[in-house]
Amino acid sequence: MKLLRFGPEGAEKPGLLDAAGKIRDLSALIPDVAGAALSDAALDKIRAIDPSTLPLVEGNPRLGACVGQVGKFICIGLNYADHAAEAGMALPEEPIIFFKATSAICGPNDAVEIPRTSVKTDWEVELGVVIGKPAKYVSVEDALDHVAGYCVVNDLSERDFQLHRSGQWVKGKSCDTFGPIGPWLVTRDEVADPQVLDMYLEVNGHRYQDGSTRTMHFDVATVISHLSQFMSLQPGDVISTGTPPGVGMGQTPETYLKPGDKIELGIAGLGVQKQSVVASE
Amino acid sequence: MKLLRFGPEGAEKPGLLDAAGKIRDLSALIPDVAGAALSDAALDKIRAIDPSTLPLVEGNPRLGACVGQVGKFICIGLNYADHAAEAGMALPEEPIIFFKATSAICGPNDAVEIPRTSVKTDWEVELGVVIGKPAKYVSVEDALDHVAGYCVVNDLSERDFQLHRSGQWVKGKSCDTFGPIGPWLVTRDEVADPQVLDMYLEVNGHRYQDGSTRTMHFDVATVISHLSQFMSLQPGDVISTGTPPGVGMGQTPETYLKPGDKIELGIAGLGVQKQSVVASE
Repeated sequence: MKLLRFGPEGAEKPGLLDAAGKIRDLSALIPDVAGAALSDAALDKIRAIDPSTLPLVEGNPRLGACVGQVGKFICIGLNYADHAAEAGMALPEEPIIFFKATSAICGPNDAVEIPRTSVKTDWEVELGVVIGKPAKYVSVEDALDHVAGYCVVNDLSERDFQLHRSGQWVKGKSCDTFGPIGPWLVTRDEVADPQVLDMYLEVNGHRYQDGSTRTMHFDVATVISHLSQFMSLQPGDVISTGTPPGVGMGQTPETYLKPGDKIELGIAGLGVQKQSVVASE
Repeated sequence: MKLLRFGPEGAEKPGLLDAAGKIRDLSALIPDVAGAALSDAALDKIRAIDPSTLPLVEGNPRLGACVGQVGKFICIGLNYADHAAEAGMALPEEPIIFFKATSAICGPNDAVEIPRTSVKTDWEVELGVVIGKPAKYVSVEDALDHVAGYCVVNDLSERDFQLHRSGQWVKGKSCDTFGPIGPWLVTRDEVADPQVLDMYLEVNGHRYQDGSTRTMHFDVATVISHLSQFMSLQPGDVISTGTPPGVGMGQTPETYLKPGDKIELGIAGLGVQKQSVVASE
């Protein structure tokens, strides 16, 4: 299934993309694509329903992030060997964890704001993993049982804030609109293998990132197991699993986003995001 | 006012500490000590009520964290000169920001769990600041207007996870129970100056930390203004503003928590926390 959230910011309703690509309203069944609605049992109940019996949503409403009430927005750093090389950093011995502010989350096609004093706002297409079942001290073998589904994340990053403003990456990862998530939460039964997904990102039609989760250093199961040794994971937590090569910081010369730019990114089977870049007010 | 949350974990009710030190139930007035209930207007409404007219809560219920639905649990690193020295780190040029997982939050007197593979679980008494009004690009002069109130935070930290497990401090800051908050959210009208508060922390009756917010490097207003340049702050966000000297890592020899230890910590006017240390299951 492809779950989504549609409607104005802060008032999104839960929905489902049907086989014809139309949005069906799930409001009568679940309060949100969030929390308890992400359990295997809750997803099975939705799966048992004929989508054609659900209310059709007319028009092309705004899409919100495909998961609501995100408790933790967790990222894995330098998780593709080629990206670590272009960033001039060593490949880590175990997953690097950092957080983005949950207030950075926005819809997949919302405008991306360049922060007031930013000079180096960069892009990162990433495979997002949405937790469906609580996880604490889980093994690699059991890890994927805790996944509700997968989605596209753009892990926008201000490199000067991240690297040159007194340590800890969070400072360059948490600005408002730095976390577009969606368009869809694709349930894990539709993603046979999360480690064979092609992914890309373009700015103004130029393809900067053209990778695959095949070259991920620590795979999704390893990441979940590792994270669960250091914190418990709850339904609705989002893990962004790192980016392949081709970020702006890795270009010669370095290339960063500016107002007016158009970003497009996608992952095979998980949909496409399109963002216009604007200056923060 | 001293606001609090009482009752079983996950089912806390909002309450108020009256002049006699008794808990009064606020459930009929606000759904939780959280979000919109933290605005100046909402707090004024509660302030206008005679506490003796509110239902008295009998007995000594468990206290939860004094603020619910925390969106971001933000910490400031190395914000006391003497603590930076004992940690062997340079005093930063601007505030160091890191996040703790919101899933680490627990009540002020809940048991603190030592993670399974931990060898260096440490303590940190800190002044917590609870945001009451959204903040984005706010000036130092206006910053304190965005504060709902203050509280005690124990920023528990696993030093090996934090410093020696592939970068980024979050890994040692986010374990379950690593964030006791409370007992009370003391509204800002009762804290004339957040920069003159004595604070202490004892383990098994030995006083390890004995400091004051007077020696804070970046004061509360500066911290809020600085944070708001890099992310927007929302009502219910908690900022833990750094710890004075006396953490376990700074002892000779280094001293860490073990099951059976008793921790007590407090800040003048903001109450006391008491935690028993247990091994994680």
